[in-house]
Amino acid sequence: MKERILAEAERLFWKYGIRSVTMEDIAKQLGISKKTIYQHFSDKEQILSQVIETKMGRDQSEMMCMAIEADNPIEEIMHVIAMIQKHADQVSPNLLIDLKRHYPQAFAQFRQYKEGEIMRSILENIQKGVSQGLYRSDINPAILARLRVEQIELAFNNDIFPTDQYTMPEIQYELMHHFIRGMLTEKGFTIYNQYVNPNNEYNLSVYEKK
Amino acid sequence: MKERILAEAERLFWKYGIRSVTMEDIAKQLGISKKTIYQHFSDKEQILSQVIETKMGRDQSEMMCMAIEADNPIEEIMHVIAMIQKHADQVSPNLLIDLKRHYPQAFAQFRQYKEGEIMRSILENIQKGVSQGLYRSDINPAILARLRVEQIELAFNNDIFPTDQYTMPEIQYELMHHFIRGMLTEKGFTIYNQYVNPNNEYNLSVYEKK
Repeated sequence: MKERILAEAERLFWKYGIRSVTMEDIAKQLGISKKTIYQHFSDKEQILSQVIETKMGRDQSEMMCMAIEADNPIEEIMHVIAMIQKHADQVSPNLLIDLKRHYPQAFAQFRQYKEGEIMRSILENIQKGVSQGLYRSDINPAILARLRVEQIELAFNNDIFPTDQYTMPEIQYELMHHFIRGMLTEKGFTIYNQYVNPNNEYNLSVYEKK
Repeated sequence: MKERILAEAERLFWKYGIRSVTMEDIAKQLGISKKTIYQHFSDKEQILSQVIETKMGRDQSEMMCMAIEADNPIEEIMHVIAMIQKHADQVSPNLLIDLKRHYPQAFAQFRQYKEGEIMRSILENIQKGVSQGLYRSDINPAILARLRVEQIELAFNNDIFPTDQYTMPEIQYELMHHFIRGMLTEKGFTIYNQYVNPNNEYNLSVYEKK
């Protein structure tokens, strides 16, 4: 039951944000009583905290699998882009806004994960890319990893990217492709272009003749 | 005298931040009495406000000149990078931190300028670059311009780039080169590469011979 509550709470939080989702809503969706929920959780705060913990854990292992399965760091990022594209439209822009404004503890949890796991995986990706000659050797991995981590929050910042003007998928797509392209060497571009579709006008023929 | 006070205040604010600079300091540096300063300005807040106004005005016209003089949008950004490199080490990281935390009105002034002038000039640069085939035609100019504007603040954010680990010039250099590379087409790269030498430093000789 606990798992079912967490799964349903996650689905609702991601879809509608946190504030607008009540214990009542979660109970109703599961066809159970609020009382049943309170047997497992003291309040919404506690559900949220465990939802984030589980979700972060899942994302982390998913990212690790990608890193392992990917032939190279570029493919790895392409997997991440695909994953974000798949999920981004399921994420309510309210989610991070609510977290930031009204659930400081849960937000701190998210921040900690971001600072730790995401930062580490981005840094590893950059270092691999540099050592394989796919990313420029003259970049500063620490600065660019930090930039990428901050972009995650930027994309969710409603003041910067108003949700009535941009969709989460288009922002993420734009930022991530721009981020990886900014690091690529010529060798990197030849591989990158195998992953992006032809209508992305980038054609390296001339470039490779250099 | 008013101009001399503003010029000296700017120098001190940029070098030491705002909080740590007193009316006393400004007067002493100019060899005048505080009384003389108060004949022209009611308080430090007012000096700061006018310093920002003048500074923004100067930067704006400097950027416009660059846009006019530059052969192409890439050269334009190279000029901006060079300008930032020239000035960045003269800017105390305290400047924006103080502004943000303790001088909300002056910070709003800066923000307004950033949202207006900087945003406009970046957007124009991107649109020029796309229309000249130097930047990808598949980018979203609004999203990337917004990203670039936010990077300016990121670079000054002491929590994100602690001043004991990074210098302003290296952060700015890293972010701006990454930013432009992320937009380039191969035609853009051939031009970009004329401006950067193999170890990616700003190569004026090549660039003036053009």
